[in-house]
Amino acid sequence: MLEVTLLGTGGMLPLKNRWLTSCLLSCEGHSILVDCGEGTQIALKNTNCKMKPIDLICITHFHADHISGLPGFLLSMGNEGREAPVTIAGPKGIEMIVKSICVIAPNLPFELKFQELSDNTKLKSNDLEVTAFKGEHSVECLGYSFDLPRKGRFNAVKAKALNLPVSIWSVLQREGQIRYDNKLYTYDMVSDGERNGVKVTYCTDSRPIKNIVKHAKNSDLFICEGLYYSADKIGRAIKTGHMLYSEAAEIAKKSDVKRLWLTHYSPAVTDPEEGLSVAKSVFEQTECGYDGKQLDLIFVN
Amino acid sequence: MLEVTLLGTGGMLPLKNRWLTSCLLSCEGHSILVDCGEGTQIALKNTNCKMKPIDLICITHFHADHISGLPGFLLSMGNEGREAPVTIAGPKGIEMIVKSICVIAPNLPFELKFQELSDNTKLKSNDLEVTAFKGEHSVECLGYSFDLPRKGRFNAVKAKALNLPVSIWSVLQREGQIRYDNKLYTYDMVSDGERNGVKVTYCTDSRPIKNIVKHAKNSDLFICEGLYYSADKIGRAIKTGHMLYSEAAEIAKKSDVKRLWLTHYSPAVTDPEEGLSVAKSVFEQTECGYDGKQLDLIFVN
Repeated sequence: MLEVTLLGTGGMLPLKNRWLTSCLLSCEGHSILVDCGEGTQIALKNTNCKMKPIDLICITHFHADHISGLPGFLLSMGNEGREAPVTIAGPKGIEMIVKSICVIAPNLPFELKFQELSDNTKLKSNDLEVTAFKGEHSVECLGYSFDLPRKGRFNAVKAKALNLPVSIWSVLQREGQIRYDNKLYTYDMVSDGERNGVKVTYCTDSRPIKNIVKHAKNSDLFICEGLYYSADKIGRAIKTGHMLYSEAAEIAKKSDVKRLWLTHYSPAVTDPEEGLSVAKSVFEQTECGYDGKQLDLIFVN
Repeated sequence: MLEVTLLGTGGMLPLKNRWLTSCLLSCEGHSILVDCGEGTQIALKNTNCKMKPIDLICITHFHADHISGLPGFLLSMGNEGREAPVTIAGPKGIEMIVKSICVIAPNLPFELKFQELSDNTKLKSNDLEVTAFKGEHSVECLGYSFDLPRKGRFNAVKAKALNLPVSIWSVLQREGQIRYDNKLYTYDMVSDGERNGVKVTYCTDSRPIKNIVKHAKNSDLFICEGLYYSADKIGRAIKTGHMLYSEAAEIAKKSDVKRLWLTHYSPAVTDPEEGLSVAKSVFEQTECGYDGKQLDLIFVN
């Protein structure tokens, strides 16, 4: 199961009633944080989520509203007892930027590792496979897809054909491999092909380009910025490298995603729900994200 | 008149219901901000105060809970239309630290100026005279006194003795000087000695040392940290370079201040008022600070 939580849904400025855009993905006791603007540590405390299990922090880009909360967040992770290394991944320059802003957070009780990403870079974080992809913004900006793969179904006929005794089947399923009669057997030898897993795609800040459609393809959940909903804001969206609700919905439609959550609202958008019908007229399965919105994605047969 | 507002009163960690410790002093359309932890820009929005008139930001020290909100705060000042230079003052290294954390806030629409301070450094910010003084913490840490001086009373006898016509008296009072009959007259030539002004002293984070007593002397308002109120926390206070409510109250008593406001509570102190009686038994005019607490200090004859 993959649990997705929107910690904040605001763009540009933290507001009294809306935290800056960030998201937490949790699976089997491990978590990934996407972006960390000012106040993200408080936003997280407002949910049922925990800091300590965060192994990977994916940064979309280096604008302050997406990264300025990092020094305080890391210090608080230390206070919560984190000791294992934490990887911070992001666009080119991630290590220099993070080290620069963390000059006020020396002596963390855990190691920071860095991973520079570009278009189509893949990395693995526990059970999740992460793919970075390029968006189009005023600075280099990455979106992320998170895949939780699902193993194929166990096939008893194949196991019997290999003369494996029933007593070791469960071990082979659980461990993924077993040595028997001086030979190594792996799970793929006793199972059918891989089944559909679960996929989440996350994209802020960007204009609606084809590369997003490609990477969001068939996602169970597509989380995408909608800075404005009024069509008359298109000039501003183009100028600042953002998108409208309707543009996010167009991507959702073209990508055949199961559902779209909007996020990263302009401070000028006081009630995000007001523009929802515009997006739904393009892609019916659109919902407005809000701080604390949560979903458990489970495997479907 | 000097308006003092506590923007936040929390120490170490920003909490859901308590912003990190910072303070705004406003006088005649100009303001000074003391410290800027994560979320200070939101804390300010919760009050009736404005960002744009802030000419000086005084940083006490470089621990994240006192400075990590600066990049976002400065960006928001730019969004609010600030164009005049802003001075950032603090301990040795202030320019390097601020430039480092502001790598994510490039292209501000106003100039940043820096002023490195040490014990007893004085600077002027519009009508206010600022004096930095050293505390005793785990890193170099400064407290600040803010003086709003008050001119002496106009003395008509002196003005008449100088043969100055009544028609120019008000100009001389307003402008502070006037050229008449080819001679320069200054206000001190036509006034009695300077009267008591208004003084505010601010101190976090520090152990209770004599230097604070010296600088807080006769303050109308002394704002001081009280990380804990329980006497059994004294070991922890000493170890981390902080003080108890009772120690802040002792300084207030020795300095003959008019009133003490406590601030910078530990996250473990859920109700600061619970410990107030302890402080009041030492110094009766003690009050617990809280986010948004405000006071107008006026000249008293």
